[in-house]
Amino acid sequence: MNARLPVHTSLDRTVELLNRLRQDAPLVQCLTNTVVQPITANALLALGASPAMVDLPGEAGPFAEVAGGVLLNLGTPQADQREAMLEAATAADAHGTPWVLDPVAIGSLPVRTALAARLVALRPTIVRGNPSEVLALAGLGSGGRGTDSTVSGEEALEAAVRLAGEHGSVVAVSGAVDLVTDARRTTRISTGHPWLTTITGGGCALGAVMAAFAALTDDAYAATLAAVTAYTVAAEVAAERATGPGSFAVALLDALASLDADTLRDRAMLA
Amino acid sequence: MNARLPVHTSLDRTVELLNRLRQDAPLVQCLTNTVVQPITANALLALGASPAMVDLPGEAGPFAEVAGGVLLNLGTPQADQREAMLEAATAADAHGTPWVLDPVAIGSLPVRTALAARLVALRPTIVRGNPSEVLALAGLGSGGRGTDSTVSGEEALEAAVRLAGEHGSVVAVSGAVDLVTDARRTTRISTGHPWLTTITGGGCALGAVMAAFAALTDDAYAATLAAVTAYTVAAEVAAERATGPGSFAVALLDALASLDADTLRDRAMLA
Amino acid sequence: MNARLPVHTSLDRTVELLNRLRQDAPLVQCLTNTVVQPITANALLALGASPAMVDLPGEAGPFAEVAGGVLLNLGTPQADQREAMLEAATAADAHGTPWVLDPVAIGSLPVRTALAARLVALRPTIVRGNPSEVLALAGLGSGGRGTDSTVSGEEALEAAVRLAGEHGSVVAVSGAVDLVTDARRTTRISTGHPWLTTITGGGCALGAVMAAFAALTDDAYAATLAAVTAYTVAAEVAAERATGPGSFAVALLDALASLDADTLRDRAMLA
Repeated sequence: MNARLPVHTSLDRTVELLNRLRQDAPLVQCLTNTVVQPITANALLALGASPAMVDLPGEAGPFAEVAGGVLLNLGTPQADQREAMLEAATAADAHGTPWVLDPVAIGSLPVRTALAARLVALRPTIVRGNPSEVLALAGLGSGGRGTDSTVSGEEALEAAVRLAGEHGSVVAVSGAVDLVTDARRTTRISTGHPWLTTITGGGCALGAVMAAFAALTDDAYAATLAAVTAYTVAAEVAAERATGPGSFAVALLDALASLDADTLRDRAMLA
Repeated sequence: MNARLPVHTSLDRTVELLNRLRQDAPLVQCLTNTVVQPITANALLALGASPAMVDLPGEAGPFAEVAGGVLLNLGTPQADQREAMLEAATAADAHGTPWVLDPVAIGSLPVRTALAARLVALRPTIVRGNPSEVLALAGLGSGGRGTDSTVSGEEALEAAVRLAGEHGSVVAVSGAVDLVTDARRTTRISTGHPWLTTITGGGCALGAVMAAFAALTDDAYAATLAAVTAYTVAAEVAAERATGPGSFAVALLDALASLDADTLRDRAMLA
Repeated sequence: MNARLPVHTSLDRTVELLNRLRQDAPLVQCLTNTVVQPITANALLALGASPAMVDLPGEAGPFAEVAGGVLLNLGTPQADQREAMLEAATAADAHGTPWVLDPVAIGSLPVRTALAARLVALRPTIVRGNPSEVLALAGLGSGGRGTDSTVSGEEALEAAVRLAGEHGSVVAVSGAVDLVTDARRTTRISTGHPWLTTITGGGCALGAVMAAFAALTDDAYAATLAAVTAYTVAAEVAAERATGPGSFAVALLDALASLDADTLRDRAMLA
C-alpha cells in the first residue's frame, strides 16, 4: 500500500476510467511494429477504444493533434515510420495529446536506440518497457536479448525513477510484478499471467491500452495503473479459459470485452 | 425487393458463385494495410480463394495482369505501396482484371486522400467504404474519425450513386445495413453482426472477398452482392458460436469455410 | 527407412532437440513477410523459442551475429528489408549462424527472384520451399501461382538434390509429404494436415521453426527433420481439436506448446 495513493482509491479510479473508456471510445493512434498491429488493434477494440494505425509522414503529425492518445512502439521502426514518430511526438507535445513510448529492444540495436533517445527528450507522458529497456533508456544498460529482459524489475527501479523525474513521465516496468512510478511514488501490480509472455504483442498491446486510458484524464499515473490493472486482470480471466498460448490470446480479447467492475475489484492486487 | 434484380435471382447467383469460388480458387492479389493482412489472407483461404500479397513496385503490375482480382486498401499506404497500387490499378485496367478500391480513412488525411483521388479516376470495378469514406471520395465530405464513420449509410447513398455513375463502378457502403449500388439500382443487405466492427479487418477482409467473387464473373453487381451476403451470413453464424470479439474472429473463419447453400438461403436478407 | 539415418535415430534426435529447444529458448531472428509475422512469432513462442523480428538495415547484420538462427522469408521483400536480408545473410555466414531461406513465390516475380539468386549464393544452411519455388531456385522452372505450387514434390526432388549439392544446404520441399534432402540422403515425412494450407503462414512459420532447431546443433539435417516432424505432428493434434481453419490456427499454437515425446513417438511418420 502506498501512502500517497491508497489502493481503494486507485481501484475506484480504474473502474471509473474503464466505464469512461467504453462511453467515450477514445481514438488511439498507434505507430507500432508490424508484428503486433493485429493484436494491438484488437485489444483496443475489445476494450472499447477506437484504434487508428496512422503512421505515415505527413499524416502522423496532423492526426496526433486530434487523437485522444498516441502510442509509439519501436519494434520494427522503418525509415518512414521513424520520421512519422518524430512528427507525431512533436505534434502530441504541442497539442497536449498524451503519448506512450515503448522502446522495444533498445540498447545494442543502433537505429532504434538513437530514435528512442530523441523521442524520450520530447517528454513522453508514459514510458513502458521491460527492465532491460528501461535501464538502456536511462543510459544505464546495454539492453536485453531481443525483446527479452536480462534483469529484474526491481533492478531497474532506480533507473525508472530517474527517467520519470528527468522527463516528467510515468514509467511502467513490465514483469511478473509490474512497477509504475512517477518518481515520487511507486505502485506494484501483481496480477497477470505468464502466458502474456508467450504470445506476441502481449506486452506491446498494453502500451496501446495505456494510451487509451491516458486519453481520458490528465492524471497519467492513475491512467497507467488503470491500464495495467485492467489488462492483467483480463489476462488472469483469460488464462482460466485457455489451454495454451493460442487459446489464451483469443480468450484475452474476450476477457477485455467483458471485463467488469466486480471482476476488477475481486482480483486487483496493487501495493 | 428490387424490380430489376429479384432477390431470389440474386440469392441463386450467390450460391452459384460461392460454388464456383471453391472450384476455381481465384487468385486474389491484395495490396492492403499491414494491420489486417493476416485476417484478410485467412478469410480468403477459408472461403476457398488463393490470396497473394504482392505489393512491390515492379511486381504489382505484372501480377495484376494474371491475378483473378485485385484489392487496393489504403489503410497504411507507405510510399512503395502507393507506387505499387498505381501500377496494379493501371495494369488491371489494361488487362480487364476486376479490382476493388477501399479508401480507408480518407478525407482529412492528405496522403491517402490524394492517392484515392488518383485511383478512383482509374475506374475501379468496385468501391467499398464506410459512409464517411464514400462521401469523401465523392468530394462531398471531409471524412470520419479514423476508420469510424460519422454519418449513416442512407446519408451517403446519394454520394454512392454519383460515384457509381461517374466511374462505372459498383459502390458498396458498409453499415448495420450494407448498401450496394451501380447508380441504376440499389440493394440493401441487412445480415451481419455488430461484432464485425469490434475486430480489426472485419470490414477490410470483405473488400478482398469482393475481389474474389469479382474474379468469377463480369457481373460486378452480382459479385458484390454475393460477397456481402456470404460474408455477413458467415458473421451471423460465427456470432452464435462466439463469446466475445476474440472467439468471434476465429469462428468467422470457420464459418466462411463451412458456409453452404442452405445457410445462405435460410439467412440472407436482401431488399 | 534410410540406411544412413535410421528412423528411430531421427526420432530420438527430434525428442532430444525439442527438449533442448525448451531449455535454451534460442533467439531466432526473423526477416519475414508482414502477412505472417504474427503467426511466425507465436509459433516460435509456443514451441519455446524466442523470436526477434529485427529486419532493419544497420541492425539486421549485427543481430545476426548474436542470434541463434536466422530466417529470411521473401514473401513481401520491401527495399529496406531486401538490404537487411543481404546484411543478415552475410553476417550469418561470417559468424557461423545457421540460417534458413524461404524463397516465397519466386519464379516470375522479378524483384524477389533476383534477391533469392543472390541469397542462395551465400549458402543458406536450410532452404525451404514448395515444389515450384525449389524448381525456380534451381533455375529449372518459372515458379507457381502466387504461393501455390503447380508441380508435385517428387517432380522437384531432382532440383532439390541439385540445390543441396551445389550450396551445401539442406533442402526441404513442402507438400502432403514433405521431402528433406542434403543431396546424399532424402527423408520423407508424411505427418501433417491439409488445414496447414488453409491458414496464412502455415508454411512460413515452419521456416522459422527450422531456424530455431538449427540453432541447437551443427547437424542441419537432423534439425530440419526435427522441425518438420514436431510442426506437422502438432498440426495433426490441432486438427483433431478444430472445426475449421480459424480454430485450427489457434489449436496449432496450443499443440506446439504442449507437444511431448510420447506424442512425437506415437505419430511420427518418416521414411
